[in-house]
Amino acid sequence: MHPLIPSIENLHNLALAERLQLRIDQKTKPLGALGQLETLMLRLGLILNTESPQLQQPQLLVFTGDHGLVKRGVSAYPSEVTWQMVENFLGGGAAVSVLARQHGIDLSVVDAGVAHDFAPRMGLISRKIAHGTQDSMTQPAMTHAQCEAAILAGREVLRELPGNALLLGEMGIGNTSAAALLMSRLSGEPIAQCTGRGTGLDFAGLEHKTQVLADVLAHHSQARTPIDALAAFGGFEIAMMTGAVLQAALERRVIVVDGFISSSAVLVAHALQPHVLQRCIFSHRSQECGHTLMLSYMNAEPLLQMQLRLGEGSGAALAWPLLMSACHLLNEMASFASAGVSESSPS
Amino acid sequence: MHPLIPSIENLHNLALAERLQLRIDQKTKPLGALGQLETLMLRLGLILNTESPQLQQPQLLVFTGDHGLVKRGVSAYPSEVTWQMVENFLGGGAAVSVLARQHGIDLSVVDAGVAHDFAPRMGLISRKIAHGTQDSMTQPAMTHAQCEAAILAGREVLRELPGNALLLGEMGIGNTSAAALLMSRLSGEPIAQCTGRGTGLDFAGLEHKTQVLADVLAHHSQARTPIDALAAFGGFEIAMMTGAVLQAALERRVIVVDGFISSSAVLVAHALQPHVLQRCIFSHRSQECGHTLMLSYMNAEPLLQMQLRLGEGSGAALAWPLLMSACHLLNEMASFASAGVSESSPS
Repeated sequence: MHPLIPSIENLHNLALAERLQLRIDQKTKPLGALGQLETLMLRLGLILNTESPQLQQPQLLVFTGDHGLVKRGVSAYPSEVTWQMVENFLGGGAAVSVLARQHGIDLSVVDAGVAHDFAPRMGLISRKIAHGTQDSMTQPAMTHAQCEAAILAGREVLRELPGNALLLGEMGIGNTSAAALLMSRLSGEPIAQCTGRGTGLDFAGLEHKTQVLADVLAHHSQARTPIDALAAFGGFEIAMMTGAVLQAALERRVIVVDGFISSSAVLVAHALQPHVLQRCIFSHRSQECGHTLMLSYMNAEPLLQMQLRLGEGSGAALAWPLLMSACHLLNEMASFASAGVSESSPS
Repeated sequence: MHPLIPSIENLHNLALAERLQLRIDQKTKPLGALGQLETLMLRLGLILNTESPQLQQPQLLVFTGDHGLVKRGVSAYPSEVTWQMVENFLGGGAAVSVLARQHGIDLSVVDAGVAHDFAPRMGLISRKIAHGTQDSMTQPAMTHAQCEAAILAGREVLRELPGNALLLGEMGIGNTSAAALLMSRLSGEPIAQCTGRGTGLDFAGLEHKTQVLADVLAHHSQARTPIDALAAFGGFEIAMMTGAVLQAALERRVIVVDGFISSSAVLVAHALQPHVLQRCIFSHRSQECGHTLMLSYMNAEPLLQMQLRLGEGSGAALAWPLLMSACHLLNEMASFASAGVSESSPS
């Protein structure tokens, strides 16, 4: 394995899983009546290696970068929206800013490769690899050196953060294209199944985007390993997010995945280290075409299905209180014995 | 119309709806990218009659009561669990207690007709109609006088509460049976489609329950109006919840519906006053068989689908932060103009 890629161990711990399940089953409720929340309790306990999981100082990172492929007309918005939205995140007016504030989640923006120079300030982590990726229609989006630098930077950024939970977010005009290309190459699904309307292409725009992506995929037919595919298709924000996911998994943080783009970073990390998935909570099923298939490829059951397609980490932030609820319920609910409640009679 | 039943007006306000939609569309996100949250913003604005909806002092009421039909073996738990769980709600150890605490929701338990005498205390609203309903296999679950008293009590309880949002919860061993009977009678669906496993019947238990309910339904074949059906099938907690829903609708509070039982109270209220539904936010799709059909009968799209089947108001409390998010996003997100973000180019 590449020296940049940490080895992620199997969390398998049958004894702990059994203790957690027993604890859940003794709570004052019919067996299984909290549905998906019970699965979540079990997952959080296993990730944090305790019967009493507590989430601390959640960190939402919005990884940002620009894409050379945008010049091929794959997005409804111009590239300049990437840096404008970075300003909006930092100014507190973006959806994810509002949601992070609501839930007490620390939000930082990581400049992985935006085609713009930002003044330094609080909340902006500058790890710019370059001013946007290259046009993957004609060359790899990034060099191998750039790809490795991005992964390393993601690991380093994560290492410096407090807390035990990472919420993934991203912004980068054109990045549904990079995510679709990565998905198609790593999962083997046809590109048309992976390609969606992104920020809002019409039907003709979607047809054009699909054709462009098919051409890009053919151009890089040799890029078959996860790292080669990441370098070929980009973007810097996805590569840096991949590094952050690997580091968070190594540190046994809870990783809250957002939508299509952040799932593609998890897909790359998973292709490198399959046990990464054990640390991931998928916050929602995006309306972006391809996400449902990607989730099912990773055997993931998302918490929310609200037809979101915004990215930014907005879905991860929206789902955050559900993770908090799972911990509170596990730690604070009474048991049948402690509350003096009769158990179900054999029927 | 019955003098107990207030007239609920149509909220139709095209001018406000258009202003709200414009405000939503000017936020810094692709059109429609917040999916179901955008519908929620619109609904909350229309209910609260403002472009800047703010939710205040949310009140979760857990309506409780016992059911005479339980003696026919329709539940996996004995009736005494109802009062034991009331103690658990008040003691803070039930799921809904934990969730209400997490989200700063005021929780009160309404004793509508539990077969137990409680010591008075903070958080318990005593409006007991009787010590449980009668066995609906042989007679109406309640008299018309009791049914009217319960509806009136629900209206009165609501009238005394502060805030502009009501979250519905309930507890009553046997009340999935009452809810299934009401659903079948008011919607015309066959009883087998309305009957589920409740707190956890096995297959034989479900078969038995369905047969009992079919017999009860046949016994009360003349009970066809909403009030007659409510009196025939019960329970006190459902009737009182129906009153609370009507009063909340009259006062234009936001009504957050929980699962199968609270939806059945909304179904009764809707049969009496159809515009009640405009004030209702359905928090989740329960795993209880019949809820999906009931939601679709009321044309409701729930926020969560997490295979919950606990009741208590647990789903309403879990979904509460999503309602708060909708308000925060509408009130705090920047517009394209205010944030200086470029809009989408015509594709």
